[in-house]
Amino acid sequence: MKKTNQEEIQRHNSQLILKTIYDRAAISRVEISRLTGLTRTTVSDAVARFIQDGVVMEVGILPSRGGKPPILLSIVDDARHLIGLDLADNEFRGAVVNLRGKIIQRACISVEGVDGGEALSLVYQLIEQLHNLTDRPLLGIGIGTPGLMDPQKGMVLNAVNLDWRDLPLGDLLRERFGLPIAIANDCQAAALAEFIFNNPENRDNLVLVKAGRGVGAGIVLGGRSMYGDSFGAGEIGHVKMVADGERCRCGNTGCLETLVSCRAIVGRASAAMEQAGRASRMQAFGDSPEAESEIIFQAYQDGDEMVVPVVDQAGSYLAKALAFLVSVLNINKVVIAGSLARFGDRFAQAIQNQVEREVLPALGRDTRVVTSKLGDDIVILGAAGLLLSQEMGVV
Amino acid sequence: MKKTNQEEIQRHNSQLILKTIYDRAAISRVEISRLTGLTRTTVSDAVARFIQDGVVMEVGILPSRGGKPPILLSIVDDARHLIGLDLADNEFRGAVVNLRGKIIQRACISVEGVDGGEALSLVYQLIEQLHNLTDRPLLGIGIGTPGLMDPQKGMVLNAVNLDWRDLPLGDLLRERFGLPIAIANDCQAAALAEFIFNNPENRDNLVLVKAGRGVGAGIVLGGRSMYGDSFGAGEIGHVKMVADGERCRCGNTGCLETLVSCRAIVGRASAAMEQAGRASRMQAFGDSPEAESEIIFQAYQDGDEMVVPVVDQAGSYLAKALAFLVSVLNINKVVIAGSLARFGDRFAQAIQNQVEREVLPALGRDTRVVTSKLGDDIVILGAAGLLLSQEMGVV
Repeated sequence: MKKTNQEEIQRHNSQLILKTIYDRAAISRVEISRLTGLTRTTVSDAVARFIQDGVVMEVGILPSRGGKPPILLSIVDDARHLIGLDLADNEFRGAVVNLRGKIIQRACISVEGVDGGEALSLVYQLIEQLHNLTDRPLLGIGIGTPGLMDPQKGMVLNAVNLDWRDLPLGDLLRERFGLPIAIANDCQAAALAEFIFNNPENRDNLVLVKAGRGVGAGIVLGGRSMYGDSFGAGEIGHVKMVADGERCRCGNTGCLETLVSCRAIVGRASAAMEQAGRASRMQAFGDSPEAESEIIFQAYQDGDEMVVPVVDQAGSYLAKALAFLVSVLNINKVVIAGSLARFGDRFAQAIQNQVEREVLPALGRDTRVVTSKLGDDIVILGAAGLLLSQEMGVV
Repeated sequence: MKKTNQEEIQRHNSQLILKTIYDRAAISRVEISRLTGLTRTTVSDAVARFIQDGVVMEVGILPSRGGKPPILLSIVDDARHLIGLDLADNEFRGAVVNLRGKIIQRACISVEGVDGGEALSLVYQLIEQLHNLTDRPLLGIGIGTPGLMDPQKGMVLNAVNLDWRDLPLGDLLRERFGLPIAIANDCQAAALAEFIFNNPENRDNLVLVKAGRGVGAGIVLGGRSMYGDSFGAGEIGHVKMVADGERCRCGNTGCLETLVSCRAIVGRASAAMEQAGRASRMQAFGDSPEAESEIIFQAYQDGDEMVVPVVDQAGSYLAKALAFLVSVLNINKVVIAGSLARFGDRFAQAIQNQVEREVLPALGRDTRVVTSKLGDDIVILGAAGLLLSQEMGVV
């Protein structure tokens, strides 16, 4: 074990001070010193550097209680901007985000049918586009993408749809843009987003299941992403759920993804509707997958008798998978994200009820299944959060 | 955050030095200083205290390379003894263990049908019995028990068979025996035993599934037991596996435990054998559950055509559960312990093959399912390991 050196201690103290300011609307140097246990000199020196860098500013003065009246400090939310990307299956989406995770500008590029080097060029293009949308200094670029990632090395091990294998995406972007880079699997990024930006109960642990085109989970344990031995923790989309099931894109059959992906649900619901002679309603909206999904979401909300059983059946398969997930991890908060989240609270409640019935009663009664409120931005926010954590240690 | 004080630093350094000695057969003070980065004075002072306490001794002298020849130090394996207990379902088993996890003496008490305060008295009795079997100073008592435990508080939250609820077992034992106490769930203790005493690849992560009377998993993640939000991580024995299944002791039906517990397998195999008119072989051994299990284990090894399909069917259910476990955690090493481990390598290999087929190929190909070699002592060793970690920080 190496001895802790002066520089490391200073960096640690400096991050601790910044985080203390970040976590509050406004705070004085004296109060920071009290909360961190650091000397007033250490605090004052660090704060002076933050003010010089423009990351912290003085925002007001407290009444004096004898002596110099304490000055209140705040984070300058837009002192730095971040670029967050979601390399989703059908389009690359990105945003300029500020230090509070507020989205300032968006951009997206369709990537249907694009892969390999061409897909990489589109990543560069999207980043350049976003770069031009802000005049603030950039803290860096955070990226969430489906597939297996090594976040420490910034390496895409395997992203099937993009046909990327062992792609050193982190190094490529770092060289090209000269900025810090953070990369994670999209489900792990989404879980982090929920942990950082929508965690009012201040939980240390949560599980997020993202179900849309693909199905996967992200796990936050003790406030950190859990990656597993080969960065595949949470890859529940390819567990075999039924014998003699449909062929999955992973090569196996009967995977969870073939039963509960948005495509699977919409396919089955459309078939049911068409069979019942209601093709006209589907066709009226054209046949784009988005339009079709939209009809199914609406029909489920309306309690449509063709659609509800199909969606509930998929929910039941998802609940079976979550029963295992909850029993393995004993994490009480389970968030559903991705397009399936649009089926809403009734869908989540039915899943929660089934999970409760299908696990050890002592675990089931504390399990809460909810839908994410972060919408389509969840991966972008998670990627930005990962970068904020990596570069500033404030989240 | 509190400032780290002198005393904490000293304790940390002291544990680091002891662990450095523990991890090697023999080592000099100079080498400890080199490995830990601590000054020679700090090392010498700590070593002097350990020698005075009898925990470390000088065992030899290295050739001089100029100057004073370095003296080699070793742990005195029997300087302290520990008591490890396994509060198993049908009998309480215990042992006196040395600092290396070597079992010195054993004792056990049958507890069939005993619960509540009576069961607690038997715990006291077993500890006293073991206490009398050693004349070494005791480091403390480690306990593994089925049910939900809070290891931090030493509290038994719920142990169904013993009818213990919110029992402050740690406090009770600490007061009675005046010794440090460590308590864990039996599956978590077993996983820890495997991690500490049978981990030649030095893995940080492993999963152990203990299947005997009950079925549950213990998870070691980053070298630490993973407990979950309410200490129920790994409670996979009560996930519903089949619709309309048998009633389980947890109150639900179709739980994994009703399909793969030793009792379930032996019950089905015996029924199959009797149906085939082979009752005589069963009866020859009397009808004790142990004798019956013994026949089934043997029949499986012999490739008995009645028994093999029954055991393989149970193995297949276990594999289905492990497919989820592996997909959620992406932990590559899965150890099967408890009486099912006695079905041996062929059983484990069949499970591994099925898991590999039923998860994402990238996860499946690295998964290894093996049977534990620690036998019936595994919970005792894990409980002792927990105490060694808690009190000396050496494992």
